Amino acid sequence: MEDAPVLIAPSLLSADLLDLRSELEAIETADWAHIDVMDGHYVPNLTFGPAMVAAVRRQGDLAADVHLMVTNPDECVGLYLDAGADVVSFHMEAARHPHRIVSQIHAAGAKAAVALNPGTPVGALEALLGELDMVLVMSVDPGFGGQSFIPSTLGKLRDLRRLCERVGAAPLVEVDGGVGDVNAADIVAAGADVLVAGSSVFGRPDRAAAVERLRRAGYLGRTGRA
Amino acid sequence: MEDAPVLIAPSLLSADLLDLRSELEAIETADWAHIDVMDGHYVPNLTFGPAMVAAVRRQGDLAADVHLMVTNPDECVGLYLDAGADVVSFHMEAARHPHRIVSQIHAAGAKAAVALNPGTPVGALEALLGELDMVLVMSVDPGFGGQSFIPSTLGKLRDLRRLCERVGAAPLVEVDGGVGDVNAADIVAAGADVLVAGSSVFGRPDRAAAVERLRRAGYLGRTGRA
Amino acid sequence: MEDAPVLIAPSLLSADLLDLRSELEAIETADWAHIDVMDGHYVPNLTFGPAMVAAVRRQGDLAADVHLMVTNPDECVGLYLDAGADVVSFHMEAARHPHRIVSQIHAAGAKAAVALNPGTPVGALEALLGELDMVLVMSVDPGFGGQSFIPSTLGKLRDLRRLCERVGAAPLVEVDGGVGDVNAADIVAAGADVLVAGSSVFGRPDRAAAVERLRRAGYLGRTGRA
Amino acid sequence: MEDAPVLIAPSLLSADLLDLRSELEAIETADWAHIDVMDGHYVPNLTFGPAMVAAVRRQGDLAADVHLMVTNPDECVGLYLDAGADVVSFHMEAARHPHRIVSQIHAAGAKAAVALNPGTPVGALEALLGELDMVLVMSVDPGFGGQSFIPSTLGKLRDLRRLCERVGAAPLVEVDGGVGDVNAADIVAAGADVLVAGSSVFGRPDRAAAVERLRRAGYLGRTGRA
Amino acid sequence: MEDAPVLIAPSLLSADLLDLRSELEAIETADWAHIDVMDGHYVPNLTFGPAMVAAVRRQGDLAADVHLMVTNPDECVGLYLDAGADVVSFHMEAARHPHRIVSQIHAAGAKAAVALNPGTPVGALEALLGELDMVLVMSVDPGFGGQSFIPSTLGKLRDLRRLCERVGAAPLVEVDGGVGDVNAADIVAAGADVLVAGSSVFGRPDRAAAVERLRRAGYLGRTGRA
Amino acid sequence: MEDAPVLIAPSLLSADLLDLRSELEAIETADWAHIDVMDGHYVPNLTFGPAMVAAVRRQGDLAADVHLMVTNPDECVGLYLDAGADVVSFHMEAARHPHRIVSQIHAAGAKAAVALNPGTPVGALEALLGELDMVLVMSVDPGFGGQSFIPSTLGKLRDLRRLCERVGAAPLVEVDGGVGDVNAADIVAAGADVLVAGSSVFGRPDRAAAVERLRRAGYLGRTGRA
Repeated sequence: MEDAPVLIAPSLLSADLLDLRSELEAIETADWAHIDVMDGHYVPNLTFGPAMVAAVRRQGDLAADVHLMVTNPDECVGLYLDAGADVVSFHMEAARHPHRIVSQIHAAGAKAAVALNPGTPVGALEALLGELDMVLVMSVDPGFGGQSFIPSTLGKLRDLRRLCERVGAAPLVEVDGGVGDVNAADIVAAGADVLVAGSSVFGRPDRAAAVERLRRAGYLGRTGRA
Repeated sequence: MEDAPVLIAPSLLSADLLDLRSELEAIETADWAHIDVMDGHYVPNLTFGPAMVAAVRRQGDLAADVHLMVTNPDECVGLYLDAGADVVSFHMEAARHPHRIVSQIHAAGAKAAVALNPGTPVGALEALLGELDMVLVMSVDPGFGGQSFIPSTLGKLRDLRRLCERVGAAPLVEVDGGVGDVNAADIVAAGADVLVAGSSVFGRPDRAAAVERLRRAGYLGRTGRA
Repeated sequence: MEDAPVLIAPSLLSADLLDLRSELEAIETADWAHIDVMDGHYVPNLTFGPAMVAAVRRQGDLAADVHLMVTNPDECVGLYLDAGADVVSFHMEAARHPHRIVSQIHAAGAKAAVALNPGTPVGALEALLGELDMVLVMSVDPGFGGQSFIPSTLGKLRDLRRLCERVGAAPLVEVDGGVGDVNAADIVAAGADVLVAGSSVFGRPDRAAAVERLRRAGYLGRTGRA
Repeated sequence: MEDAPVLIAPSLLSADLLDLRSELEAIETADWAHIDVMDGHYVPNLTFGPAMVAAVRRQGDLAADVHLMVTNPDECVGLYLDAGADVVSFHMEAARHPHRIVSQIHAAGAKAAVALNPGTPVGALEALLGELDMVLVMSVDPGFGGQSFIPSTLGKLRDLRRLCERVGAAPLVEVDGGVGDVNAADIVAAGADVLVAGSSVFGRPDRAAAVERLRRAGYLGRTGRA
Repeated sequence: MEDAPVLIAPSLLSADLLDLRSELEAIETADWAHIDVMDGHYVPNLTFGPAMVAAVRRQGDLAADVHLMVTNPDECVGLYLDAGADVVSFHMEAARHPHRIVSQIHAAGAKAAVALNPGTPVGALEALLGELDMVLVMSVDPGFGGQSFIPSTLGKLRDLRRLCERVGAAPLVEVDGGVGDVNAADIVAAGADVLVAGSSVFGRPDRAAAVERLRRAGYLGRTGRA
Repeated sequence: MEDAPVLIAPSLLSADLLDLRSELEAIETADWAHIDVMDGHYVPNLTFGPAMVAAVRRQGDLAADVHLMVTNPDECVGLYLDAGADVVSFHMEAARHPHRIVSQIHAAGAKAAVALNPGTPVGALEALLGELDMVLVMSVDPGFGGQSFIPSTLGKLRDLRRLCERVGAAPLVEVDGGVGDVNAADIVAAGADVLVAGSSVFGRPDRAAAVERLRRAGYLGRTGRA
C-alpha cells in the first residue's frame, strides 16, 4: 500500500447545494466524491439519499463514496447500490447482519466498508476484517457540526494497522472528520489511505488547489511512514 | 376563499438536482417551492433535509413549503423551522403530540399543516382543525413513485369541506400526488387551494408555461365551484 | 349478500400442529383455512409465517385466509402474497400506509381486508372502505388465549353495516374470537359473512360435523336477518 | 352525576419531592392523589414509577390516580396495578390493545380510564366508551411545562358529553392541565367531574385551603350546569 | 469433550410442515430437534413459536433445541421455557441483558447458549463464556435462504476454542448453516460438538441414513482433532 | 489511587420515598447519593428522573451520582446535566454515540462514566477509556430486584485494572449490585473505588453506622490491595 497514492474524497456536505454541477467539476482532480447520507435518526441531521448518488454518478468520473449514517442499513443499502454507489460504508453499530450487508455490496460490484464511531474499539471488526475493502474511521462524532479532529484517532489507526496485520487483511483505511492541511500528514503516517475533506476543500475559493495541497500533505505522511 | 387565486407549488423532487439554482429561477412565477423531506423510515426513500430548506430560502422569493415524511416529526420539526420553512406539513399518523407541533410551528411564525394519507379519514383532524392553517391531502401514497391520482380523493376533499364548515374552520387545502393539467380543475372544484406539481412542471421544457397552465386550470375549477 | 352462504374459516391455531395434513383433510368441507400470523411483537405469541401459508396452499382446495398480527405489515405483506395467500387481513392500527398495502394485495390478485381491534371504532375505516374486499372485526383482543366473545361486538357489526351503506361499500365481514354454536346465529344476524372458528371446530372429535353445525347456525342468523 | 361532588386530584408533580409525607398530609381533604408517570419516551421528562404509587397507597387514604404517559402501556400497566393504583389512565394514542388494557385494569379491581391528547378527537373513543370508568381529557400537551389551559378544551368536553349520551355511557370526566381557581367553574360546567391541580394547590402555602377553593369553584360550575 | 459423540440436530425448517409427526419419527435416531424461531423483525422470515416447541416435546424423545432469531429475547424467552425447551440460544447482538437471560434459562432447568452472527467477533462473549452451556456459531447469515457455509467459520471456531481455554470454560459448540457430509469432518475438527443440519437431512429420502452419515463424518473429524 | 478513601454511594432506590429529606440527612456522612434512573424500557421498572436529581442537589452536600438505565441516553442526558448531576453513568450497550455523550457531560462540568452490564466484556471500553472519569461495573443485572452479587465480577474488576494499565488510563471504578459488609473488602481489593449500597444502608435502622461500616470494610480491602 506504501506506493499507492493517498486518495482525496471531498465531502459534498460542504459544497454549494444549489450548484452541485459546478462543484463537482471543480473537484474533478480529486478521487472520490464523498456523500454523507444522514436520516435524522442515526444522527439528528437529514441530508440526501439515493437520488444524489445517482446524480453524482451521471456527472463526471468521480467515484461515489457513500457513507450511510442511518439506523437501518440492512433495509436500505440496496437503494444506494441501485443508484450506482462505488463505495458504501455502513456503521457496525447500526447493522443487524453486517456480514450479509458486505455480501450484498460485493454482489453489486461495489467496495464494502465498515465505519467505526470514535467510541467503538477496532476489536469489533475482528470477524469481518477479512471481507472488507475499506474501514472508515470516524475522527469526529458523525452528524454533528463544529467538531475538531479527535487526537486519539491516531492511536486507533495504529491499533487498526496491527489488527490488520494479525488477521492478514489489507483494507483501505479512510479517515473522516476534521481533516485538513495541518494534520493530513500525521493521519496518513498513522495509517490512512483515503482522506475525507469538507471545508478544507469547499471552504477554499480554489477547490482544485485545495485538493492538491491535501494530496501533497498525504504524500509526505506516507513517505514518512514507509 | 373563492376569490383567492389557486397557489401552485412545484415539487423539487422532480427538479434537476445538480442545477437547482436554475430550476428555482425557472419557477419564480410559481407561489411556493414544495420540498419533500423523506427519511428512509416513514417512506423507503430518503431525499433532503434542513440544508435544502435553507438553500431554497436564500435563493429568490418562493416560500419554502416543507412536507415532512418522517417518523419523528415531534423531534425534528425545529430543524426545519430554524432553516426558515414558511409552511410545514407533518403527518397526523406519525406525530406523537400533534397539537404541540402546531404550536411550535406557529411560535416560529410559520404556517402549520397536517398531512393525511389516502387511508386516513378526515375525522382524524376534528380536534385540530381549528388550529391549522392548511390541510395537505395526499392523493397518492407518499414516498412511492409511479402512482396516479387516486379518484376517491375528490370525495374526500368534499368531506373535508363539510367538516370545516361544521367546526367553523377555514384552512387552506393542498393536494399532492398525480396533479396535472387534466385533473387540476376538478381537484380545485372539489376544494383544493394549493396544487403540488412534480413532473407536470419539471417534466416540461418550459417550466414557467407549465406553472401558468396549472394556474389557469385551477382558476377554471374555482370559478366552476363558486 | 343475503343469499350468499355463510363462510366457515377454521383457525389452524387450534389444530394439531404435528399432523396438519390430516387436520386440513378433516376440514375440507369448510371454506377457508384461517392462518393467524403472530410475530411476538404486535401480540406476545409467535406462531407461523409464509411457509405455513405455502404449505396450506399446496394441500387441498381451502383458500388461505391470512390474518397478520404483526407490527410491520407494510414491510412483510409481500412475503405472504408470494406464498400464495388468497385473503390477507392487516391491522389498521399497525399499518403505516394502509391504502398502499391494499393496492399491493390487489396487485397480487388476492382479497384485501383490514382488521379492527375491539377498541378501534369503525370510523377509522371510512377512507378505505371503498377499496376493501373484507373487514375483519375482532371479537376478542387478538393474540391472547382464553377469552370469550365480547358482547358489544354485535353493536359494532351494526355500526359497520350502517357505515357501509352510507359510503356505498359492500365488503365481506369476518368475525374472529369466541365464535361457537351458541352465538353464531346472532353474529351473522348482526352482519357477519365469514366466521372464524378455533376450538369450536378443532376441539371437537368430528371436525366436519362441527363445521356443518356452524354453517347451519349461520344460515339461521342470515335468514333471520333478511 | 349532577349531585355528585366534584373531585379534586392534586398532582404530585408539583409537590416537594423531598417531603412527600408532609405534602400528602397537607392534601388529605382532597379526593385523589394524581401521579404523573412519564418515561422519557412518550414525553421528554421522566418522573416516577410503581414505587411512588405503592408509597402513596401505604400513606393515608387518598386514592392513587395514576396517569401513564408511557409508550408501552400494554407491557407495563401490570406494574402499577400490583403497586395498588386505584385509577389508571393510559393514552389511546400509545396503546396497542386498549380494550385489553381496560380488562386488565378491571380484573385488578381498579377504575379504567383513557387519556386523550389535545389533538385527538373524542370519536377515537367510540368503541371503548361503554367499558370506561373515566375519560381523562388533557387540556395541555402532556409532559411539557409552562403551558396554559387550551380554551378549545371546553368545546371538546361538550362533544364528549354528547358522544356519551349517544352511546349511553356515563364515565367520569377528568381534566388535567392549567386548571385553577379562575377556570374551574367553566370546566366543570362543560362536563368535568374530576379536576387535576398542580401549582394551584402545591404552589400555595395553605394546600388545604387551595383544595377547598377549587372544590367550591367546581360546585358553582356544577350548579350552573344542572 | 474428545470422547463425547458429535450431536446431530436436524432443523425442522427443512421438514414437511404438514406432516411433522412423521418427520420427527424419521429422525428419532438424531439427538436434538433444532427449532428456528424467526419473528419477521430480527430476520425477514417468520417461522414458528412456542406452540411448535411444545408440540415437539410432547412427541418422542428428541430434545428441543430452540434458536431464537428475535429482536426481543429478553421479553419472550420465558414463553419458550414454559413450552419445554431443552436448549435455548439467543443472539448476543439482540439481547439487552444477556447475563440475565442466561440466568432465566438456567432457572428453568434448560441449557443456555449464545448465538453469534458471522460478523460478530468471539471476543463479544468474553464476560459470559463462564456461564454458558453452549455457543452457537452461525456459519451463514441467519434467516436468509440459499447460502453456503462461510469458510472463515473454521478460523472462528479455532479462535473460540482458544478463548475458552484462556478463560477456563468448556461450553458445547454448535454450528449452523450450510453443514453437510462434505464439510462436517472439518467443522468438527475445528471445534464443533453439535451439527445443525437442514436439507442435508430433510432433503434426503432416508432421513435416518442421512443422520448416521453426518454422525460418522463428525466422528472422523473428532478423531482427527484429538 | 491507593491512598484515596473508598467512596460510599447509598442508592435512593432503597430509601423511604415519602421522607427523602430525612433519608438524605441520615446519610450525610456518605460521599455520593446514587440515583438510579430507570425508564421502563431499558429495564422493566420506572423510577425517577431529573426532578429527583435537582431535589437532591438543593438539599445538603452529597454529590448527585446519576445512573441512567434508559434506552436513549443520547437524547436525554442533557436533562440530567441541567438538573445538576455531578456524575453521570450511561450504558455503553444503549448509547448511539458514546464518545459524544462523554463530551456533553464534560462540557457541563460533570464526571463522565460508562456502565457495563454483567454480560459485556471490558474490551468494549477500549476506545473510550482514556476519556472516562469512572467506569460503573454492574455486579447484578440492572433493574431487577432480589439478586445477589455475581462472583465473576471480581475477575472482571481485575481485567478492567489490567486494561486501564495497558492504555494508561486511571478512571474511578464503581461497583453496584449486592454490595454489603461481607464482600466490600474483596470488591475493593479487586479494584473498586466507589461502592453503591442499597439495602445494606437503607435497610438498617442506623444509616450513618451502616455507611461507616462499609467504609471501614472498603479501607481493609484497599490496604490489602496495596
